[in-house]
Amino acid sequence: MLIEIGDNMKLQTAKGVRDFGPEEKIVRNEVVSKLTRIFERYGFSPLETPIIERYDVLSAKGGAGNESDALQEAFTFEDRGKRKLGLRFELTLSLARFVGMNPQLKMPFKRYQIGEVFRDGPIKLGRYREFWQCDVDTVGVKDVVADAELISLSLDVFKELGFDAYLEVNNRKILTGMIEFAGIPKSKAESVMISLDKIKKLGENEVRKELEEKGINDEQIAKLLSSFKVSGTNEDKLETLKGILKSDTAKEGINEIERVFSFLSSSQKKNVVFNPALARGLGYYTGTVFEGFLRKSEITSSVCGGGRYDKMIGSLLSSNSDTPAVGISFGLEVITDTLRLSKKSVKKCVTKVYVIPIGTQEESMKLVKEIRDNGINADIDLIGRGISKNLNFANSMGIPYVVFVGEDELKQKKFKLRNMESGKEELLPKDRLIEKLK
Amino acid sequence: MLIEIGDNMKLQTAKGVRDFGPEEKIVRNEVVSKLTRIFERYGFSPLETPIIERYDVLSAKGGAGNESDALQEAFTFEDRGKRKLGLRFELTLSLARFVGMNPQLKMPFKRYQIGEVFRDGPIKLGRYREFWQCDVDTVGVKDVVADAELISLSLDVFKELGFDAYLEVNNRKILTGMIEFAGIPKSKAESVMISLDKIKKLGENEVRKELEEKGINDEQIAKLLSSFKVSGTNEDKLETLKGILKSDTAKEGINEIERVFSFLSSSQKKNVVFNPALARGLGYYTGTVFEGFLRKSEITSSVCGGGRYDKMIGSLLSSNSDTPAVGISFGLEVITDTLRLSKKSVKKCVTKVYVIPIGTQEESMKLVKEIRDNGINADIDLIGRGISKNLNFANSMGIPYVVFVGEDELKQKKFKLRNMESGKEELLPKDRLIEKLK
Repeated sequence: MLIEIGDNMKLQTAKGVRDFGPEEKIVRNEVVSKLTRIFERYGFSPLETPIIERYDVLSAKGGAGNESDALQEAFTFEDRGKRKLGLRFELTLSLARFVGMNPQLKMPFKRYQIGEVFRDGPIKLGRYREFWQCDVDTVGVKDVVADAELISLSLDVFKELGFDAYLEVNNRKILTGMIEFAGIPKSKAESVMISLDKIKKLGENEVRKELEEKGINDEQIAKLLSSFKVSGTNEDKLETLKGILKSDTAKEGINEIERVFSFLSSSQKKNVVFNPALARGLGYYTGTVFEGFLRKSEITSSVCGGGRYDKMIGSLLSSNSDTPAVGISFGLEVITDTLRLSKKSVKKCVTKVYVIPIGTQEESMKLVKEIRDNGINADIDLIGRGISKNLNFANSMGIPYVVFVGEDELKQKKFKLRNMESGKEELLPKDRLIEKLK
Repeated sequence: MLIEIGDNMKLQTAKGVRDFGPEEKIVRNEVVSKLTRIFERYGFSPLETPIIERYDVLSAKGGAGNESDALQEAFTFEDRGKRKLGLRFELTLSLARFVGMNPQLKMPFKRYQIGEVFRDGPIKLGRYREFWQCDVDTVGVKDVVADAELISLSLDVFKELGFDAYLEVNNRKILTGMIEFAGIPKSKAESVMISLDKIKKLGENEVRKELEEKGINDEQIAKLLSSFKVSGTNEDKLETLKGILKSDTAKEGINEIERVFSFLSSSQKKNVVFNPALARGLGYYTGTVFEGFLRKSEITSSVCGGGRYDKMIGSLLSSNSDTPAVGISFGLEVITDTLRLSKKSVKKCVTKVYVIPIGTQEESMKLVKEIRDNGINADIDLIGRGISKNLNFANSMGIPYVVFVGEDELKQKKFKLRNMESGKEELLPKDRLIEKLK
């Protein structure tokens, strides 16, 4: 909607960004607080890095910027000192910078970060230019026990959100092994993986075409795609692959995935699916990759995704030392969209009780203060509406209780509490009223 | 600190922005959650507006941008469609835009918003280019009962944060009355107020100079400054002013402030100081203004500030209708700085217990999962360190409890829990262990 304002200016948001009114923001806050609770339960600490980063950090070699459209889609500008800057388009690069700048950090460094990222990309359905990522990363652990911990965390997130969801898991080393097995030269491995990652979205035929364009021949493609056609339980699939893939890299990948599974309980394993075709778009992944999906939902995009990137942080530092890392990122937007689809009732505000003064504003302000002092979310009519208008307001905002404060009530020192759903009214002394609302 | 990275790139943050490592971010999160709790207790609902705004919204007439350095200091850039955009430099303009774009909003609209704002200003001590504002605003209430509610809220915020702080309160209409009383022409009123606002920072002499430069003569300045020299209780001051200021505007201002005070309890009034010199920098304030300060603190900058701005939102809309509003903004940085000064112990992480596997990683992972399932923040050694190194790690992170899991413990089904502060150790069955940690 456009509203004309002074000087014919348009009253609107920038293209591709959105406002979240109270109804939506309440849900977003709930999700963030649930994620935070689980991240902290798993021993991750919060980190905040700035939204503005130096352009040369955003464009660092080995970072996501150079491997995807992200850098091209970065919003860039200069500060008053003509320094080239940009808005972050992901949180991982900033984590890498932070780790690099703080050599005193105790390892392993387990951190989570929740915040906005920005991409000046084309606007499609469900794609925005400002959106939130919720990242959890473990830096400094080579062993895939850290990968298993993140899988367990993700499953707990699904449970906490009430999602019927599962995690697909793979290992880049297995993929590399398959590419070798298909006789595709190593130099093309990364590019092939990026194509393979699109199977779910584009279908096998489209990916076949893309691979052909990349100079992979029919026989290679057939061999590659056939090796994905393993079936059965996770164990069955791994056994089949063990029979096909004989390279050291492939064996290492299979060992790692088996070790990851060894840390999961049988009930957890029900929601973890080994998918040898899972590649993940970014080139910097070196081992485990994972991606979370909803079952029986109209939402088909992934809820979370991540993997192990043992070389990325090191490559940002001149030392080029190995700094192993594994992380997963949850998309706030896809989570809130899912919740919105599944929820019948939506909260319009978080107020529990609405006080209606009837010619008693001063005293009513004192009462509402006392209710608030007891930790109860309380609101009060501030514009002197009549009773029925006030009841309509409380009703339309979904506030569950209303208290009437007239002269009589003040004299009696008892207040009428109305349950807005049942319509039931009770006359209660102040202490009982507050007790009841608690 | 600079660290050289690949291609001689400097590994550093942009100028004027900062990282907040876990220690600092834990405090920031605590403050945000305390503020949120109080804002919601007072019936305010959350709102999220985007960080990127259209430049013509940021530069709208009547907004803060045109009245201060804020617009000049805005970070601006273009999107791929060559649309002129900028980063928000305050939250109030976005609120006004949101209200304008959503005519279906139920009034009064009470919202809070907490988030980053950006100013490409000169870097001084304590001034940053990216910082957080925590805003609470009531839109649609003409009566100063809404102003009183925000004062009460601010005092509750101080209490919740453990601050010895007070709120200075004034009314722009009283200031206008004083300027009239001093014989200063109306056309200079706004400019004079902006100078007056600096008395606390620059002292009377500097302000006197500034007023002279603005063409105010000695007699006018003397008369103006003398009218600030009222003393005694708030009531005393108001009585004195009633004797001096006879214009309708001044009387209205005095009435409004008296009405504001009528809603405050006597204990609240102890922390509310009527200061007839308080002006607040921005021109858009129309009535009550307030600003919060700490007592006995090395931090002299204000903790919060705000006021009533009845014309700003309307002036953004072509309708030019009156949309009364009053708001207050808390600075996250000054609050966290204050807390850091006053706190002896700092939390390095939020982990409560650290599990040390002694050759039992798989079983230990299961134990830590069970502890986490009980809602306890738990971490575990993921890199196979020795016992003493692990104890050092837990100690340096300030984790209060450690659990050892050796083969013997697994056989006995009892685990050794160590209180890191007292050094006391207990051998406990799993249920008791978890109960204890809860």
